[in-house]
Amino acid sequence: MTDAIAVTRTLARYVVNARYDDIPGDVRHEARRALLNWLGCAIGAAHHETVDRALAALAPFAGAPQATLLGRSERLDILNTAFLNGVSSHVLDFDDTHEKAIHPSAPVYPALLALGEWRNASGADFLHAFILGVEVECRLALAVFPEHYDVGWHVTGTAGVFGAAAAAGKLLGLSVQQMTWALGIAATQSAGLREMFGSMCKSFHPGAAARNGLCAALLAARNFDSSERGVEAPRGWAHVLSTRFDPAIITAGLGEHFELSRNMYKPYPCGLVVHAVIDGCIELRRRHDLNPAEIERVELRVNPIVIELTGKKTPNTGLEGKFSVYHAAAIGLLYGRAHESEYADAVVRNPDVIAIRDRVYATADPAVKSYIEAYVSIKLCDGRVLEHHVPHALGTLARPMSDNDLEAKFRALVAPVLPDNRIGELIGLSWDAERLGNVGVIARGAALDAPRA
Amino acid sequence: MTDAIAVTRTLARYVVNARYDDIPGDVRHEARRALLNWLGCAIGAAHHETVDRALAALAPFAGAPQATLLGRSERLDILNTAFLNGVSSHVLDFDDTHEKAIHPSAPVYPALLALGEWRNASGADFLHAFILGVEVECRLALAVFPEHYDVGWHVTGTAGVFGAAAAAGKLLGLSVQQMTWALGIAATQSAGLREMFGSMCKSFHPGAAARNGLCAALLAARNFDSSERGVEAPRGWAHVLSTRFDPAIITAGLGEHFELSRNMYKPYPCGLVVHAVIDGCIELRRRHDLNPAEIERVELRVNPIVIELTGKKTPNTGLEGKFSVYHAAAIGLLYGRAHESEYADAVVRNPDVIAIRDRVYATADPAVKSYIEAYVSIKLCDGRVLEHHVPHALGTLARPMSDNDLEAKFRALVAPVLPDNRIGELIGLSWDAERLGNVGVIARGAALDAPRA
Repeated sequence: MTDAIAVTRTLARYVVNARYDDIPGDVRHEARRALLNWLGCAIGAAHHETVDRALAALAPFAGAPQATLLGRSERLDILNTAFLNGVSSHVLDFDDTHEKAIHPSAPVYPALLALGEWRNASGADFLHAFILGVEVECRLALAVFPEHYDVGWHVTGTAGVFGAAAAAGKLLGLSVQQMTWALGIAATQSAGLREMFGSMCKSFHPGAAARNGLCAALLAARNFDSSERGVEAPRGWAHVLSTRFDPAIITAGLGEHFELSRNMYKPYPCGLVVHAVIDGCIELRRRHDLNPAEIERVELRVNPIVIELTGKKTPNTGLEGKFSVYHAAAIGLLYGRAHESEYADAVVRNPDVIAIRDRVYATADPAVKSYIEAYVSIKLCDGRVLEHHVPHALGTLARPMSDNDLEAKFRALVAPVLPDNRIGELIGLSWDAERLGNVGVIARGAALDAPRA
Repeated sequence: MTDAIAVTRTLARYVVNARYDDIPGDVRHEARRALLNWLGCAIGAAHHETVDRALAALAPFAGAPQATLLGRSERLDILNTAFLNGVSSHVLDFDDTHEKAIHPSAPVYPALLALGEWRNASGADFLHAFILGVEVECRLALAVFPEHYDVGWHVTGTAGVFGAAAAAGKLLGLSVQQMTWALGIAATQSAGLREMFGSMCKSFHPGAAARNGLCAALLAARNFDSSERGVEAPRGWAHVLSTRFDPAIITAGLGEHFELSRNMYKPYPCGLVVHAVIDGCIELRRRHDLNPAEIERVELRVNPIVIELTGKKTPNTGLEGKFSVYHAAAIGLLYGRAHESEYADAVVRNPDVIAIRDRVYATADPAVKSYIEAYVSIKLCDGRVLEHHVPHALGTLARPMSDNDLEAKFRALVAPVLPDNRIGELIGLSWDAERLGNVGVIARGAALDAPRA
């Protein structure tokens, strides 16, 4: 019987009883890496029109200035703050990705940082709650994967709400009974359709998950009750939202292995499928000190899914550029990097960029086993051929971004928003997060002192 | 092709272009009846512990005192007010029921009254928006009925969020484009599991639907966008949350017939399935001026579903009493009524009640075609047999509660909460709602002047 295991209560008991001392050092460090990466994404997108519009809509109804909107001067109540920081986390599609399933940080960190700032939580409690929230949301996602996603649910929203509830509940010190209710209240709010991809609602999902998960924990703390089998009951979350449910995935090895260890960070603000191509082009440029005028022809050999998803030959906008493996190769070769600035409309329409892009040819080759692999070959005008094989794109588990890479990504994201001195300060606070007496310093360190012009 | 009709946009266009002058008089009157019934339910449950706990959890994060919590002294921002009034609407399971599908008022009126109070909306605009919101949520519910409900979704939550979004969007004056987005933002928040029945989360659902639907309309008013095919796309609401979708049900005869005409009101605060039995017992008591001591045996003949759902022979709590057709018969015979007071724990355990209850026998008879029908037969100690057949329970479409019945129900619900003079005032305001310059008078008329002891 798939519902024989009391999955909801087992998860609740694990989260409530877990001790930070039992978390391995590498998992703790991954939580700090995720923090730095998440902060950069949220601050970097803080003034995106998606955030501006959501804030304009909700600010008239927000409560006391309890928590910080990252990268902005406004302060709102913790629920609205969790929502808006959750939206900004995901707007650039640049936040972290679990190897199999979900964007782990975007629903959890916004709920936790708002609550932690308001409650003056310690850094260790904050990181611990994050690790546990990620554990809960990833295990739930994996237990229904891939059927749940295939039918049309955006799992970052639908599973993320559990992660936010578990993390916030841990920080609130819920009992096992209350944590079971919090997970149930999360289950009955689980939502988010993949149909929304391409609209502002995609980043609405982690925002709503953060807000609703935090709300679930706050309600449970007041003994607002729910079913105690919100996940596994015949009419519970897993069976209603998926045709597949493997409860053993949720309960096996709790506290022994950590899903956060399978977290990945993107070096480039575009789909993972073009990252290997960008890597290869940057590497060839660096190695051979390439002059674009020397390039006669660029040949890419990639897994067919790369062409299927990013086969746009002549993009016209920055957003279209993100779905063009040709643009990816061109900016790698021309600029030796791929930041958000290389996806500006003006860059996509720049004649120098177009001149290279028009010389890029891509071949779909099923022999290239995965989208994280790519072969790049450049024919120069003088007849030389330069080749490079990328077996694993930067940012994958086989070749993770280094701490230095993450710092550089953070700097590039935050520089347009916060003063220089704040950037180093936030990097330091992230690496030192475990020793902070009050995580509010992170949130307040990420605030703008005055509204942006 | 089921997704060939642009259902989302068709609904949006209908709601935006609809004119109150085109609404038939009987539908307008039904909106006022629904208003009176809804107000009574929400005020009557205003101090239920479900509401107390939710308010205690959320009040620290609420915004400016823009709107009234019905039957209470607190005022909160409109989103939190919509949530809490939505919860109290449904706590007693005494709110209205569409013939086929959904509790129409609980998600829609709380969103509208909070918004209307804050925006000083006129009574006609308020009633019109309600009628349209009910139309949207009922049509969506019917288009996926019953598969959507059978799989485990609480349709009052999942469809109700669309009703709240459409109604709030109408009051906000959204364009067709914005209304399409509002419905999409509603679609991607649609949630609520039947697994939660029996817990506080059941009434959480209409509260969340009211709040989230209002939020969707507010976001869309600021041009926060969504998919434009949130309902009908292959990965839209209807296909992800149901195995059945009949788009014609949504679009056929819009503006010609109104789902609000199929709305029903409960005379008794318990499951509809025992209403016919209560009716029969009250009628026999009235007609024969029965003395309980004379009763030797009571025989009920009912549809099998009545025994299946309410076959509890010896209830011990008020809540269990609601699931006992034996208790239903006993209170009808003993008290000649079935108000919330007859479901107090003390009444369920009262020896006089138990004495009658033990003499009640119920037979499941498939020849009794529906749960709205019942045969009651009483054998008296002197040998006489009294019989009564109830073909249609009071409150069904075939035998609706009269306006006077609704007033009596309102009085019984509100008397424990508000002073007497307010009761008559609110009844008057409900019947006159169409002529009100500002619906805020209804909300403020339902406020307690000071916190309850």
